[in-house]
Amino acid sequence: MTRQTAPGAAARDAAATQQRILAAATEEFAAHGFAGARVATIATRAPANPRMIYAYFGSKEGLFRAVIELAVIQMQDAVTLDATDLPAYAQAVFDAYKEHPHLVRLALWQGLELPGLSDEIAPIRRANEEKTAAIRRAQLAGQVNDTLSAAQLLDAILTLAYGNLVLAQGIGDYSDTRRESLALAVELLVTPR
Amino acid sequence: MTRQTAPGAAARDAAATQQRILAAATEEFAAHGFAGARVATIATRAPANPRMIYAYFGSKEGLFRAVIELAVIQMQDAVTLDATDLPAYAQAVFDAYKEHPHLVRLALWQGLELPGLSDEIAPIRRANEEKTAAIRRAQLAGQVNDTLSAAQLLDAILTLAYGNLVLAQGIGDYSDTRRESLALAVELLVTPR
Repeated sequence: MTRQTAPGAAARDAAATQQRILAAATEEFAAHGFAGARVATIATRAPANPRMIYAYFGSKEGLFRAVIELAVIQMQDAVTLDATDLPAYAQAVFDAYKEHPHLVRLALWQGLELPGLSDEIAPIRRANEEKTAAIRRAQLAGQVNDTLSAAQLLDAILTLAYGNLVLAQGIGDYSDTRRESLALAVELLVTPR
Repeated sequence: MTRQTAPGAAARDAAATQQRILAAATEEFAAHGFAGARVATIATRAPANPRMIYAYFGSKEGLFRAVIELAVIQMQDAVTLDATDLPAYAQAVFDAYKEHPHLVRLALWQGLELPGLSDEIAPIRRANEEKTAAIRRAQLAGQVNDTLSAAQLLDAILTLAYGNLVLAQGIGDYSDTRRESLALAVELLVTPR
């Protein structure tokens, strides 16, 4: 019977299965990290045949890469960078991840277990290059402090945003004070003088 | 025979065993995190009887707390904070952890798995309070920018130092450029204007 399914329906089934696998894998990797996550648990939760997971994603690492790529793209779509208002950008990152705390955990696990991965994923690298270029233009226009290079400044802003998210998550305090202190710190970094 | 050992020698033996356990546990927790670490592996590596681990530290979490406490105190002894030169403080933190990259991993695992733990450990909390008070005094003396509160500023400085360490570790680049950009970022945060 399955072999007689129309090609369009088969493709839709495959896409739906892949989405279920990615959703289950995101939860499992966020909770236990790359090493701690179990493909069998992901298969049960999806639900999906474990063999299909390997068929679609190649390996546990391939699945982790797909999860990271999806998560980063999801966040990038939710937040736009206006280089003339970087404190607002930092707050928008904070707000977006606040709604998805498991994605902060995922980013931390990735930094611990597979550092360098995000540079290997083309859409992530490209998005970072675009952000850096926008900041560089604002620096050249005298709108943003150029003590740090554009890439260093983006790193510092994201580090402060993530750091505040980790601290917020740790003590369950996503207060406005924390959000405001993030914006103030970024303002000190970006204001020309 | 053991029962006839002099009390002084027994105490020294106990201290030596505890030190071996802590050293083995530091390696194991840094490599695999709290959940991923195995007490049996720590016992084999120390070497020590697993029962002694529970006798000395109570539980796996008790052992993890002891490891974190030791690691933080070790780092605090290696780095002193001069509130009138906070860029140098950030660099000293960077340098100290650069020599002990597993302690950065340990700090990240702790943030992920047992957030809030460092506030529960009295010596760590006290050391943070002393640093915050020193920064506050420098702010009141007009030597340090007071846009952020002293506690927020210390958080931001340590976040930038850790963030740079994680990035450095990830791509194996502990270059002077990274160390300098850390100092520049902290300078932007602390310079009064």
